[in-house]
Amino acid sequence: MDLENIKKPEDIKHLNTEELVDLSGQVRDFLIENLSITGGHLGPNLGVVELTLALHHAFDSPKDKFIWDVGHQAYVHKMLTGRMNRFDSLRQYKGLCGFPKMNESEHDVWETGHSSTSLSAAMGMAIARDVKGEDHSVIPIIGDGALTGGMALEALNHIGHAKKNLTVILNDNEMSIAPNVGAMHNILGRLRSGQKYNWVKDEIELLVKKIPAVGGRLATTAERVKDSMKYLVVPGMFFEELGFTYYGPVDGHNYDDLFKSINYAKKTEGPILIHVITKKGKGYKPAETDTIGTWHGVGPYKIESGKSLKKGSTGPGWSQLISDTLIKIAEKDERVVAVTPAMTVGSKLEDFKKKFPDRLFDVGIAEQHATTLSGGLAAQGMKPFLSIYSTFLQRGFDQVVHDVCRQNLNVVFGIDRAGLVGADGETHQGVFDISFLRHLPNMKIMMPKDANEAQHMVYTAIENQDGPIALRYPRGNAKDAPSEEPFREIPIGSWEVLKEGQDAVILTFGTMIEKALEAAQILDREDVSVRVVNARFIKPLDQEMLSRLAMEKLPILTIEEHALQGGFGSAVLEHYESEGGIETPFIQRMGIPDRFIEHGSVDELLEEINLTTNEFVSKIRTMVPSKQKRA
Amino acid sequence: MDLENIKKPEDIKHLNTEELVDLSGQVRDFLIENLSITGGHLGPNLGVVELTLALHHAFDSPKDKFIWDVGHQAYVHKMLTGRMNRFDSLRQYKGLCGFPKMNESEHDVWETGHSSTSLSAAMGMAIARDVKGEDHSVIPIIGDGALTGGMALEALNHIGHAKKNLTVILNDNEMSIAPNVGAMHNILGRLRSGQKYNWVKDEIELLVKKIPAVGGRLATTAERVKDSMKYLVVPGMFFEELGFTYYGPVDGHNYDDLFKSINYAKKTEGPILIHVITKKGKGYKPAETDTIGTWHGVGPYKIESGKSLKKGSTGPGWSQLISDTLIKIAEKDERVVAVTPAMTVGSKLEDFKKKFPDRLFDVGIAEQHATTLSGGLAAQGMKPFLSIYSTFLQRGFDQVVHDVCRQNLNVVFGIDRAGLVGADGETHQGVFDISFLRHLPNMKIMMPKDANEAQHMVYTAIENQDGPIALRYPRGNAKDAPSEEPFREIPIGSWEVLKEGQDAVILTFGTMIEKALEAAQILDREDVSVRVVNARFIKPLDQEMLSRLAMEKLPILTIEEHALQGGFGSAVLEHYESEGGIETPFIQRMGIPDRFIEHGSVDELLEEINLTTNEFVSKIRTMVPSKQKRA
Repeated sequence: MDLENIKKPEDIKHLNTEELVDLSGQVRDFLIENLSITGGHLGPNLGVVELTLALHHAFDSPKDKFIWDVGHQAYVHKMLTGRMNRFDSLRQYKGLCGFPKMNESEHDVWETGHSSTSLSAAMGMAIARDVKGEDHSVIPIIGDGALTGGMALEALNHIGHAKKNLTVILNDNEMSIAPNVGAMHNILGRLRSGQKYNWVKDEIELLVKKIPAVGGRLATTAERVKDSMKYLVVPGMFFEELGFTYYGPVDGHNYDDLFKSINYAKKTEGPILIHVITKKGKGYKPAETDTIGTWHGVGPYKIESGKSLKKGSTGPGWSQLISDTLIKIAEKDERVVAVTPAMTVGSKLEDFKKKFPDRLFDVGIAEQHATTLSGGLAAQGMKPFLSIYSTFLQRGFDQVVHDVCRQNLNVVFGIDRAGLVGADGETHQGVFDISFLRHLPNMKIMMPKDANEAQHMVYTAIENQDGPIALRYPRGNAKDAPSEEPFREIPIGSWEVLKEGQDAVILTFGTMIEKALEAAQILDREDVSVRVVNARFIKPLDQEMLSRLAMEKLPILTIEEHALQGGFGSAVLEHYESEGGIETPFIQRMGIPDRFIEHGSVDELLEEINLTTNEFVSKIRTMVPSKQKRA
Repeated sequence: MDLENIKKPEDIKHLNTEELVDLSGQVRDFLIENLSITGGHLGPNLGVVELTLALHHAFDSPKDKFIWDVGHQAYVHKMLTGRMNRFDSLRQYKGLCGFPKMNESEHDVWETGHSSTSLSAAMGMAIARDVKGEDHSVIPIIGDGALTGGMALEALNHIGHAKKNLTVILNDNEMSIAPNVGAMHNILGRLRSGQKYNWVKDEIELLVKKIPAVGGRLATTAERVKDSMKYLVVPGMFFEELGFTYYGPVDGHNYDDLFKSINYAKKTEGPILIHVITKKGKGYKPAETDTIGTWHGVGPYKIESGKSLKKGSTGPGWSQLISDTLIKIAEKDERVVAVTPAMTVGSKLEDFKKKFPDRLFDVGIAEQHATTLSGGLAAQGMKPFLSIYSTFLQRGFDQVVHDVCRQNLNVVFGIDRAGLVGADGETHQGVFDISFLRHLPNMKIMMPKDANEAQHMVYTAIENQDGPIALRYPRGNAKDAPSEEPFREIPIGSWEVLKEGQDAVILTFGTMIEKALEAAQILDREDVSVRVVNARFIKPLDQEMLSRLAMEKLPILTIEEHALQGGFGSAVLEHYESEGGIETPFIQRMGIPDRFIEHGSVDELLEEINLTTNEFVSKIRTMVPSKQKRA
């Protein structure tokens, strides 16, 4: 069967194992070739080729519901459901999304991006099915890493108790994004290495009968042994205890094993967990031999060597820069420790880990725990730096409010990937954190304009020791390498004027500063003189500068790569309201409108939402009408 | 030993078991008597009398760190740490807090209120201890209910792996706030009913030796049995699998048992979990016989009978009202289901449960799961009503963003306890939800002015089916019972003028409306005519009415029982900015300032933060200067 003839899941139903094996090879070739051009989550998808084909062979999507946890491993599923011809646009603007998307296909019944959500969604669907009296399977496919997320564990607790029919596929590749940590990882490790003792009930009972009668205390113990034989029947004690039938381990690259387990699941009443062992990157040597997660998500690469084809950047990556700075500070202060929820690689903390193995805490995908753990560290005088992506901090929100801000603990939030993130799209954009942090008492929020300021801000955050402080930094690279040392403290709440101007003022920060300066230069040529302010503190604002601006009565434009609702511009509006108002209609805000922003390059997205130099120029022109006439 | 002579933990160190038993009785009498006047969390505290005395007897607080999960069970701890004489002010304005508070005592090393945080905090403290080279114990005390919270499970995963010395006290009273649910509950149930086989390793090995040699497949099974004997050595398999030493079950009302387990813990390397069985309400008949959680937290009561001394309210409780309405709607539409994270009693869903046992899903303390479960239900055409306290919705924030809003699913959020909650204080105030929900695309937020409108809003929310919608309602009682049926849909985003006026406008909603109307009446007498608008939709705003107001150029005062940052008033500011500004400095906002609000009666708190009729009158006077002179 030629891969290109597969247009829908039905097209593989008649294939036998041999044909499926052949098709698997074609799928892998397709992925390796296509992703070498577009980039994408190669490793995870190469790992689930057989699993995905087996699932679509054995179940009937979309009647049966596949729920892909995290979702970056759904490429094969996309290929089998009529989207093969769109892979040249993968993760590109207006192109195929890198995650399941309902508007792409009826086979995508649930959208993901963040991890650990599939079990809860599946349980909801299973309940709905039963209330409606329908008959179909619900099949969440969840990785071993995602299983340590608190909400997945909450769901296991509910599912195991409620006894609904639900087939959980545990896709265990021994690493999620990076190598896995935690007790759950150990449990799975024991299961992986164990032999298959799934169905030896009869033998066990026979054996128990052979235990001789004994007396005294030993008799009780013998009883206990007999009672507990159920624990020996299956190796998946942990899951059995939670109320699941455990089946495994299953070789996730062996069709016979996969079909056997799926057939068993179909006959099983109540929730079942099939423990499938897969190999990330399977079938592509550079990815197979990856042990730290480099091939989890990649940019374009040379197929033969696996070498990255990414163009070099001028400046250092933001994550690396922050991490390097942290190392320099940590060298002088042993109270500085780093905490990461499974993002040692993503947040470039490998060097920190090498240098201070006892002071880097990778807690797995567990943002809630990571946040309050940082709080506990701070409560005892440590200086924790919690490195966390903006979008994932949403997971630890209550812990930020209730544990850190309320107790005014000295936790530094290193908010990575703040702003638009590009190809990962709407599930990963970091455009809400100002709105969900700004209203929290005691919180401080800042964002640097360049690499030098970033270094000073890391230093400031750690030295400040006056409650929680958040340091936002974007995805991608800084323009230039840092050059200023020693590090210095930046006064909390202080802004700086980057360019003088007398006709209007732009208040902005971070990634938007360069464009704002460009806009100001263009307007200079039109004889409109625009002041540009680096509003590096989003909370607290520079009250003094704002008051001075009010006296000057200049029109003010706020610009932010962040949601407009409750964002930086709103903070400025609030400031002037609380100061008793001002006399002219002089504040305008630019930022991200009230909708989710899909995937594409950051530049394309900024263009779409009008956050460009030209739009800034146009906006200022409307705000300086007299000058406009003159120009 | 007289209870009144206990001023610090040292004072009980020399007591023997008999004396401790005597003291326990005195502690119970003290609690029963004092709480009969002040109200408070009687049941949980009566259950931990012996446990708390034993802990303070065996450990050295504050060198050793007690971390009280949730914290409403820390009364006995407060009594033993010099705060006995303040119990007449318990949970009252400026009085003793109902939860641990660092500023009350050095023995309160971590503040709680929300559940499931203690393990993460404890792990942070244990790491800090080891980095600093200190030597002390860290002892989180966590209930069986709190153990199902995702962050507690994340912490178990980390702690069990990292092997730090940590003594987890699992206070298992078979119910948290209400009877417990979930697989974890079943696991604990099996442990509770099991005999104590903690330390019978020798016997087990002896027994294994007696298993006769067998051949063939049975031989392998026998090997397996032998290998797995460790599973039989201790009953706490689930926790042992996670990397803990399990010790239990321990009778939490027996000092000898308690001391034995604590001594064992002190000698144990690595994390240990002591499974202590306690009885909620122990020693006070009305509380002991409570099976649904009525005595969890109570108001003043008559000691002899246990009868509540609460004064009757005129109107129905808000939670009951919403719940009753939901039942009426659910009777006609079987797609309506209710989801609650362990708040069946608090949210008054008992009647719903009785009526529709298969359509009420109490998932335990698991707000994340509850939110995405609701999403899964909605994705399959059900109409889920997620009943959740404002402050606890913080726990499900990422799920609201990523799963519900992003997929635009028809989940109704019934946000209970919105606004100030009074005696529970700063950990429980529901004053942030507008700020953390308003910036989410697709979200709609509303709050009713009275019982009738509340009913129509429940109906509107469920009928709307145009994405997520949040219905906020306060703690306490409505003023009047509802009278309007049938229910009707309120147009989304429509406000209503409750009182006409030509000099100024108050835009407000929910609990503040009554005071606003009173203020308007007072001002009427001064010939200042104030319009009062029921801004029942916080998102979307009534754009049309706002535009009309702008044309009238009246001063506008926004009032909200909610944080000012990012709140309703900010939304109004944003609206006028995006409409191009307006000509006069005419908007003023009143709301909750940028700090956490402690406990006290709601009226006292409103007074403290200037949300009173008089303050509204004064503010309007400053906004209508010409009239002010005339008056």
